[in-house]
Amino acid sequence: MKLYSYFRSSASYRVRIALHLKQLPFDYVPVHLLRDGGQQLKDEYRALSPDSLVPTLVDGDAALQQSLAIVEYLDETHPEPPLLPKAPLDRAYVRSIALQIACEIHPLNNLRVLKYLKHMLQVPEEAKNDWYRHWIEAGFATLEARLANDPRTGRLCFGDTPTLADICVVPQVFNANRFAIDTSRFPTIQRIYDHAMTLDAFKAAAPGAQPDAE
Amino acid sequence: MKLYSYFRSSASYRVRIALHLKQLPFDYVPVHLLRDGGQQLKDEYRALSPDSLVPTLVDGDAALQQSLAIVEYLDETHPEPPLLPKAPLDRAYVRSIALQIACEIHPLNNLRVLKYLKHMLQVPEEAKNDWYRHWIEAGFATLEARLANDPRTGRLCFGDTPTLADICVVPQVFNANRFAIDTSRFPTIQRIYDHAMTLDAFKAAAPGAQPDAE
Repeated sequence: MKLYSYFRSSASYRVRIALHLKQLPFDYVPVHLLRDGGQQLKDEYRALSPDSLVPTLVDGDAALQQSLAIVEYLDETHPEPPLLPKAPLDRAYVRSIALQIACEIHPLNNLRVLKYLKHMLQVPEEAKNDWYRHWIEAGFATLEARLANDPRTGRLCFGDTPTLADICVVPQVFNANRFAIDTSRFPTIQRIYDHAMTLDAFKAAAPGAQPDAE
Repeated sequence: MKLYSYFRSSASYRVRIALHLKQLPFDYVPVHLLRDGGQQLKDEYRALSPDSLVPTLVDGDAALQQSLAIVEYLDETHPEPPLLPKAPLDRAYVRSIALQIACEIHPLNNLRVLKYLKHMLQVPEEAKNDWYRHWIEAGFATLEARLANDPRTGRLCFGDTPTLADICVVPQVFNANRFAIDTSRFPTIQRIYDHAMTLDAFKAAAPGAQPDAE
């Protein structure tokens, strides 16, 4: 398998965690989102990913898009260790945490959105950073409430073994740290992040450990 | 089951389509996003959904959030008719279409995001509407390219029977129509929408058919 990835992209980061949790070997193909006017916008990459978004996972002849679809695909084709619990209600719960991040926080802070704010709406730098922090803080506040109150929370989002939920939470905390958000206000999220970062798969998937890290 | 829904919410609309496709009876509980300063922000609703987002599906004691997690839950607990194909590569493809809409288009046009643009960033009405249209048009352009070029496209996104992909495409086209976007530029999407709207489940789930329709 080949993963087209940018070290700092949190959608790429999610797929890297899944690949490492399942101990699947893959070739890392860097796509630099800022260099050359954005390598994701070049025809070569658009042939794989018409959306010009990373990551793309190439498996055989197939080019797969959308990080959560890719993680579910890896989970279906390489079931061990499972990234979702067994019971439908628990699966829905874990998926809802993942989607809360993937649909309510992350899309608003995507590079192309920040570019639109800056270039099309002339939003000043500081207001743009406030926007970035606002969506993380709003999303983390409710996520913290859910995790702190749910008996299924363990050392990680669902018990003690990594799931799709942790795969989404960890990269989002990484982004929060980059923007100097005080995550001590979200102690359950912080504790889960800290524990995840003691695990080999999460360490290996971290932005700083990638070949294109700066 | 009980569905907390707002007739015009496209995330609610998705879950309604799934419930109707599976012919599952449910009580409709309207949550008016604009009335009373937003009924989704009241403590009563926040107890079910800390994020103050619709929909919430209540099944027994469980309150489920996030439309795609709910649809997958319904598909796992009531497998007929299936909303995902069988082969992992096809499942990933269908999920990736759903997620392209749920992660790349819809979150940017959510009510709370439009409110932030207006109140926090003082974006004028016309620029706000341009923003709305921009994300639909950008997302539809690449979705159109994918659907037009993929041999799996039939009368619907994946062959001729409804899947999770159609469940996301149809409400997004409804939104595009509301904002007077010329969808004839996306002929495959338009054709899929037109066909879906001949099917009973899609008709029954449409905003205009809901008890809280205005």
